[in-house]
Amino acid sequence: MQPPTPSNTSFSSHFTPKFLPKLHHQTFRLKPSNKFNFKPLSSINPNPSRPPKTSNIISILRSIPDWADRIQEQGLKRRRVLYNHEKWVLHRSSLRHIRHLLSSLQSRVILSLIPPVIAFTSVAVAVSGYNTAIDMHLLPGFLPVLRASTLPYQLTAPALALLLVFRTEASYSRYEEGRKAWMRVIAGTDDFARQVISGVKSSSDAALKNALLQYIMAFPVALKCHVIYGSDIGRDLQSLLEGDDLAVVLNSKHRPRCIIEFISQSINLLNLEEAKRNMLEANISCFHEGVGVCEQLMGIPIPLSYTRLTSRFLVFWHFTLPIILWDDCHWIVVPATFISAASLFCIEEVGVLIEEPFPMLALDELCNFAHKNIQEAIASEQVIQTRLMAKRKKHSFECSQKGWPKS
Amino acid sequence: MQPPTPSNTSFSSHFTPKFLPKLHHQTFRLKPSNKFNFKPLSSINPNPSRPPKTSNIISILRSIPDWADRIQEQGLKRRRVLYNHEKWVLHRSSLRHIRHLLSSLQSRVILSLIPPVIAFTSVAVAVSGYNTAIDMHLLPGFLPVLRASTLPYQLTAPALALLLVFRTEASYSRYEEGRKAWMRVIAGTDDFARQVISGVKSSSDAALKNALLQYIMAFPVALKCHVIYGSDIGRDLQSLLEGDDLAVVLNSKHRPRCIIEFISQSINLLNLEEAKRNMLEANISCFHEGVGVCEQLMGIPIPLSYTRLTSRFLVFWHFTLPIILWDDCHWIVVPATFISAASLFCIEEVGVLIEEPFPMLALDELCNFAHKNIQEAIASEQVIQTRLMAKRKKHSFECSQKGWPKS
Amino acid sequence: MQPPTPSNTSFSSHFTPKFLPKLHHQTFRLKPSNKFNFKPLSSINPNPSRPPKTSNIISILRSIPDWADRIQEQGLKRRRVLYNHEKWVLHRSSLRHIRHLLSSLQSRVILSLIPPVIAFTSVAVAVSGYNTAIDMHLLPGFLPVLRASTLPYQLTAPALALLLVFRTEASYSRYEEGRKAWMRVIAGTDDFARQVISGVKSSSDAALKNALLQYIMAFPVALKCHVIYGSDIGRDLQSLLEGDDLAVVLNSKHRPRCIIEFISQSINLLNLEEAKRNMLEANISCFHEGVGVCEQLMGIPIPLSYTRLTSRFLVFWHFTLPIILWDDCHWIVVPATFISAASLFCIEEVGVLIEEPFPMLALDELCNFAHKNIQEAIASEQVIQTRLMAKRKKHSFECSQKGWPKS
Amino acid sequence: MQPPTPSNTSFSSHFTPKFLPKLHHQTFRLKPSNKFNFKPLSSINPNPSRPPKTSNIISILRSIPDWADRIQEQGLKRRRVLYNHEKWVLHRSSLRHIRHLLSSLQSRVILSLIPPVIAFTSVAVAVSGYNTAIDMHLLPGFLPVLRASTLPYQLTAPALALLLVFRTEASYSRYEEGRKAWMRVIAGTDDFARQVISGVKSSSDAALKNALLQYIMAFPVALKCHVIYGSDIGRDLQSLLEGDDLAVVLNSKHRPRCIIEFISQSINLLNLEEAKRNMLEANISCFHEGVGVCEQLMGIPIPLSYTRLTSRFLVFWHFTLPIILWDDCHWIVVPATFISAASLFCIEEVGVLIEEPFPMLALDELCNFAHKNIQEAIASEQVIQTRLMAKRKKHSFECSQKGWPKS
Amino acid sequence: MQPPTPSNTSFSSHFTPKFLPKLHHQTFRLKPSNKFNFKPLSSINPNPSRPPKTSNIISILRSIPDWADRIQEQGLKRRRVLYNHEKWVLHRSSLRHIRHLLSSLQSRVILSLIPPVIAFTSVAVAVSGYNTAIDMHLLPGFLPVLRASTLPYQLTAPALALLLVFRTEASYSRYEEGRKAWMRVIAGTDDFARQVISGVKSSSDAALKNALLQYIMAFPVALKCHVIYGSDIGRDLQSLLEGDDLAVVLNSKHRPRCIIEFISQSINLLNLEEAKRNMLEANISCFHEGVGVCEQLMGIPIPLSYTRLTSRFLVFWHFTLPIILWDDCHWIVVPATFISAASLFCIEEVGVLIEEPFPMLALDELCNFAHKNIQEAIASEQVIQTRLMAKRKKHSFECSQKGWPKS
Repeated sequence: MQPPTPSNTSFSSHFTPKFLPKLHHQTFRLKPSNKFNFKPLSSINPNPSRPPKTSNIISILRSIPDWADRIQEQGLKRRRVLYNHEKWVLHRSSLRHIRHLLSSLQSRVILSLIPPVIAFTSVAVAVSGYNTAIDMHLLPGFLPVLRASTLPYQLTAPALALLLVFRTEASYSRYEEGRKAWMRVIAGTDDFARQVISGVKSSSDAALKNALLQYIMAFPVALKCHVIYGSDIGRDLQSLLEGDDLAVVLNSKHRPRCIIEFISQSINLLNLEEAKRNMLEANISCFHEGVGVCEQLMGIPIPLSYTRLTSRFLVFWHFTLPIILWDDCHWIVVPATFISAASLFCIEEVGVLIEEPFPMLALDELCNFAHKNIQEAIASEQVIQTRLMAKRKKHSFECSQKGWPKS
Repeated sequence: MQPPTPSNTSFSSHFTPKFLPKLHHQTFRLKPSNKFNFKPLSSINPNPSRPPKTSNIISILRSIPDWADRIQEQGLKRRRVLYNHEKWVLHRSSLRHIRHLLSSLQSRVILSLIPPVIAFTSVAVAVSGYNTAIDMHLLPGFLPVLRASTLPYQLTAPALALLLVFRTEASYSRYEEGRKAWMRVIAGTDDFARQVISGVKSSSDAALKNALLQYIMAFPVALKCHVIYGSDIGRDLQSLLEGDDLAVVLNSKHRPRCIIEFISQSINLLNLEEAKRNMLEANISCFHEGVGVCEQLMGIPIPLSYTRLTSRFLVFWHFTLPIILWDDCHWIVVPATFISAASLFCIEEVGVLIEEPFPMLALDELCNFAHKNIQEAIASEQVIQTRLMAKRKKHSFECSQKGWPKS
Repeated sequence: MQPPTPSNTSFSSHFTPKFLPKLHHQTFRLKPSNKFNFKPLSSINPNPSRPPKTSNIISILRSIPDWADRIQEQGLKRRRVLYNHEKWVLHRSSLRHIRHLLSSLQSRVILSLIPPVIAFTSVAVAVSGYNTAIDMHLLPGFLPVLRASTLPYQLTAPALALLLVFRTEASYSRYEEGRKAWMRVIAGTDDFARQVISGVKSSSDAALKNALLQYIMAFPVALKCHVIYGSDIGRDLQSLLEGDDLAVVLNSKHRPRCIIEFISQSINLLNLEEAKRNMLEANISCFHEGVGVCEQLMGIPIPLSYTRLTSRFLVFWHFTLPIILWDDCHWIVVPATFISAASLFCIEEVGVLIEEPFPMLALDELCNFAHKNIQEAIASEQVIQTRLMAKRKKHSFECSQKGWPKS
Repeated sequence: MQPPTPSNTSFSSHFTPKFLPKLHHQTFRLKPSNKFNFKPLSSINPNPSRPPKTSNIISILRSIPDWADRIQEQGLKRRRVLYNHEKWVLHRSSLRHIRHLLSSLQSRVILSLIPPVIAFTSVAVAVSGYNTAIDMHLLPGFLPVLRASTLPYQLTAPALALLLVFRTEASYSRYEEGRKAWMRVIAGTDDFARQVISGVKSSSDAALKNALLQYIMAFPVALKCHVIYGSDIGRDLQSLLEGDDLAVVLNSKHRPRCIIEFISQSINLLNLEEAKRNMLEANISCFHEGVGVCEQLMGIPIPLSYTRLTSRFLVFWHFTLPIILWDDCHWIVVPATFISAASLFCIEEVGVLIEEPFPMLALDELCNFAHKNIQEAIASEQVIQTRLMAKRKKHSFECSQKGWPKS
Repeated sequence: MQPPTPSNTSFSSHFTPKFLPKLHHQTFRLKPSNKFNFKPLSSINPNPSRPPKTSNIISILRSIPDWADRIQEQGLKRRRVLYNHEKWVLHRSSLRHIRHLLSSLQSRVILSLIPPVIAFTSVAVAVSGYNTAIDMHLLPGFLPVLRASTLPYQLTAPALALLLVFRTEASYSRYEEGRKAWMRVIAGTDDFARQVISGVKSSSDAALKNALLQYIMAFPVALKCHVIYGSDIGRDLQSLLEGDDLAVVLNSKHRPRCIIEFISQSINLLNLEEAKRNMLEANISCFHEGVGVCEQLMGIPIPLSYTRLTSRFLVFWHFTLPIILWDDCHWIVVPATFISAASLFCIEEVGVLIEEPFPMLALDELCNFAHKNIQEAIASEQVIQTRLMAKRKKHSFECSQKGWPKS
């Protein structure tokens, strides 16, 4: 998954090289470490031969989107929590609308909308100013008032709305795919551990059984670190694996598959009958599939032509919106453009945000949760077994009086 | 699933702390016991240093949404029933529209809409009053009439409608996921019990077979209590499990998984051949999957950014609606805003309500239903077996005259 | 599935008890036998203390919806047929539009729309009459003309349309789920029978094999009777099961599961090797799943809050429609309301009608079809076997000249 | 699938018998043989007692839709081809729009739209003529001008559009279901053949292996003929089966199932170990499922109430469209009605056309393709085996120098 | 999949032969080699008897769409890359809108829209010019001004938008189907290789194990070349297969199936116990299914009637759009038509582009990725095994002090 060569050349070739030289260069060194340190942007200009003036303007213009991106990326790193019953009560409380409204200014979705919304509102101000100047004869008379019929917009509005919402739906179905893949990984981990706990009985295997359970618990953690940007796999696995195993895992290029191999070979070394071994091996393919789904979701986005179409359609629409609305609204085009841009770009932003679902899912808690379940299963094994043995004896004594289970 | 520490700090951090101090504090002690007792809200103010006046106003303002939430949560606890043929006849009767209309005022969906709808209607009244005052020159002349062109609203209306309805669809597909998961759990319980009844024959296993059937019948009940808020698992399992087993289950952190372990270990203790044991064990993974789906539906909601976007879009739209409609409607903006808010917030409310599907499903009846089926299967086993044995003999006598089954 | 206690109390509690006492009482005794006998409604009034006048008015008002419901329920009992090639040619013939138009007045969907459409058209007539009276100064001048701006309706129209059509889509996906469940049941029946025919060879099992095939053929019939309202399972199973078996089945509470137990025990009594028995048993879980899907579709409708929301939105919209349209249309509001109500309620009606899919599917023919297929398989077994034996001999003679199959 | 009794009585009962007697009678003898022979319609009038005049008018009126249906049914019989890379280049060429436009007049979808479009355009002409006559005072003054407000149409337009497009989507999902079922049938055929080729080794089975491969290749062809109207199964199977087998298959009522029985019994007669036989038998259930899906798609259409609703909504809408548009458009209502009818009926027509997907899929080519693949597999078996044996020897010699596969 | 005979006759029969003779002939020799060489089009005119003038005009008219198609097809051949974390950061950066806007002119989707957009803008110019000439009395007075009411367009606009967006959705679901099929192929390859690595232990099989791993690694590459137009399978497989194997594969008609046969026969030649061999064979059917899905996606497009309907609806709509908009917009119809055509044709273009998903997926990188994973698995096998053996010993020593895994 980690392409060794800097393959963003193909990406940056989309820029018109004359226009945005800084933007171009910037994208090359977008590394998390430097990205979130908030150095002044000019200090990382590697190309002193460019006239400093252009570079300054661009760096000023870039400061807002850079700030918005920093906030968004930091937000993505925030730990998510699993919902419980209390959270659901809050979630459907009738005060939720106030809560959402008041938290608007802290929402990173909304903050990351600031750059485009400011841009389009500025265009609306400019168009309104220009038109007012014409109306007041402050500008030469041959210049036209910028205005147009609204009908073409009314005819294409449903198409734009559908496009936006379907794009968001496509992202949401990726989110669901990720959620279900993790559901299967976690349920598979639980089931695998249960089979190992109850199926491996011989005392000579105790060491390997121990290690195998460690690997099984480590697998979801390794997969989580594989799909979350900037996660520290060494720290997360430290408490789960022994030092030497950890070193082998950290040295491998693909950590989740490395742990799968540990599991696979441990099973081969256990003293089991063939049918049991095959049953245990079948769980591995479930892990393989989980890795496959996660990697595909990460590696293959929604077709870029679809994403770009939506973005361009939106941008184009909002650039011309002030002209369209001028006759109807005059200076009200400014708030109107603001509202329209805020609403529609927000839909697009949410669609882009949930397109890569993993930072949105509470994977940390899911892993902890699986870990705790397995440990409780290990702990309670003895209790339940004793209880059942006792019961068997008591029951075989009482059974003649009692009959079938009462309802 | 039960996070031990109060993790709603992350949640409450969304509030602007200056504005709504009481709201903030309140959310901390939202416990079902105290929530539904209807104490005067001021009595639970833990922070006597705050000026009582603000706190009073807020508690008055909060009284309506709190009342609405109480009604909604009580409604969620109402026992649902499974539909039967008679209910379907009613369901599609042409009188249903009258029935739905007359029951509107008792509907908890509609009652929980009262707070936002009142709020927006008040805004509409205020805007209309202000504009009328301006028109009648009761206010200083430099104040503008609040009005705007409707065009931006006409252009974004399809997007809002689509967003709302797709959000509702996403909730509905979660409801379907929950329904199907429970369908598989109930069908799996039936099938598991049938296999145990017909497959465990040796008389030395009678006690364990008995216990195993109890555990199997207890599993859906434990899972139901796990996913329904405020359910009393002790009372529900009392009649299904013996006291000591019940104690073990109630002491565990994750009751459904604890019962799965009881089942797993009982199967291991039975005197079965290996193939039969494997077939029985395969049923356990079906239970595991059921637990997994239910926990994911409960733990991971629809992406909050999506939910908040819809809520904010709605709120924003309705705050400005009276201004937009003023030119067209004048004082009719008040009923118009009322109708629009009632309709659109109702769609959103239904979407939020079915997002956590379990209180909506008749899980109690489903569990009872499975219980009764298993008991009837136990009861009829002997009858059918006798009948078949008799038939075999009679048939082997008649068979030469009769041939193949008649049609 | 048959709740023993009268659980419609929860349902009837939605009525405002003052308003519609008769409606309330009526719903209690909505039994099919009495429902479809068309007694005069007054004769079944069990509460003689009520003033007869109100009761008369209500019974008159109720006569139309009752008549419509009777027609609809009778229509649901009509036997459906499977499509064949000729029907498809008719189905896509370009005359279909005329056919559908001419059959409108016999369509039970349209007939069951009569009550709401009449109601809303009457409201439109009343509003128009009132407004005309005001315009002609026939009424006191302080009364307002009922009219309003259309803009709020234009803004919420897309939401209503989406809601309606998505509700219909949700019903349609239930229909598809039912169709696919029955497809699997029928294909499973065929496959099960084929395995029994070819797999049970020992002559001592002939009687049981015979009985087992009868049970397999009886299963889809029993399931059909379980899901279709008012079907006579005794008559349908009479020709498939022997008298004593039939009595056992009819005495059980859950007939399809009872037949599954017959099948399960028959397989246990056959002289088969273990692997074969397991393969046959696997088919039973397919039947179990079929029962599960059918019962869930019947027991759990689309969330009632969703259904009620759509219904209330529609009713509300059409009550106010005449007021909205008055300025634009004057007396044309009457046909306009008629057309709008007819179209939109028809969409809703279709959605409600296909929500419980089983009366819509040609289950009778599907069962017959499976029955005939199994009988043909039994009949042709010998022919094919003879043919293959003969062929083996002939082929083993010719084989050296001929080689591989020609293309 | 072939109902023995003429079950179209239930269908024809939808016609009002007074109105369209010929239509009624005609539908009874809609047999493919006579349908596509283009006899003059009057010659098949079996009821000489009817006044010939009405019958003539009707037969004239029917001539256009009959001609359109004939063209459509002939079009459905045209052989479809599988797409290849060259076709895809054409498919996405930017000239495709011209190509589609120029081929409009040959498109059978468009030709089958002629009857309704002509009808509605005629209505528009009539309404315009009448209104013009009124305006020019050519008609008595008490007659009203036919005109109405457009608002109700604007409010219901989204509902109509959604209904139409969702109906088309439902048809498309049936198309996809059919496509995927055939994908599994073809892949299953390939896999089955591969297993037989590599798994049946004993020379005494050569004749049966040969026959079994023939049956496997014949299965998709038989299924194709089962689902395509008017296909000649005798001719298609002639080259695949021997004469006697073909006779047995042609005599059976359900040919695909008959071939499945041939396959099933052939496997039973082969000298195989039990596990191998079970693996081969598992393929049969895949074939059974394919038959099941195809028959359900053919036997159960989209609920007729849904289809009729769409059709009636469309017809109703277009009948009144000229009245609605009169004020706005005057004589332009004629092209406007034409355009609207052509567009919307075309969507409906496409939805009806792909509702039964099999004539749309290139089943002929798929069957040929599977046939060729199996024959190539038979042919190449020996080559590959020789190559691998040779390789094994060479490799075991070289292996020490070479190690693992190079990358 | 490669039809041997030129089957595009059926396709070209859609052209009206009189109109576009060159177009007709051109389509016959649309071979990739000649297509992308940019010869002057006149030089390949094979039919010298035609008047050169018409042919010249057509070749001039064709030059723009041919150029657009060339760019699009070259774009499709560009290597795609898998996304990684850095790309996702860029993907959701708030500068993405600027990036998409600036890259518009290099986008091949947009370039391929040039022909239709130019055409419709020209029509708009012509209509505006004609209407202006009429208004200025430059043309004879009996000619009408081309104008019409906009109402019919407002009523059908939602239908057009829905049709377009649903068509795009259908294409997107094909894209998803392709993506998931490849996910399973790649995961299956990984799993298959792991099973072979760990399951084949006997040293006499080393050569075949080696070859088998080569074949497994070659399978996704062969499938990729099968589904990507103009790929050089010889070059891609050169480094994976030995010369003789490669020759056999290249000679076969269906290369992926040929490799499957190599795999199948290799497994048959290995010295394995039966259960292991069956487990390995089960992987082959996963490959078969992958081939099946890919071939169906390639062979069967979205129903052509649906595609053509959308295209014709769009073309028709835009031809008449200038007439509709004239009254409202006058000369602004030109930019309005331009914007509308650009937006809506762009949606259609994206839908057509992702209808065949394989050129859009980064299949090259997926294959490399699978290759590298398998090689790392081969390399690390020894390390992990040593580590586990060592651990087993150390652990069995420490175990008494340590107990269960720490958390």
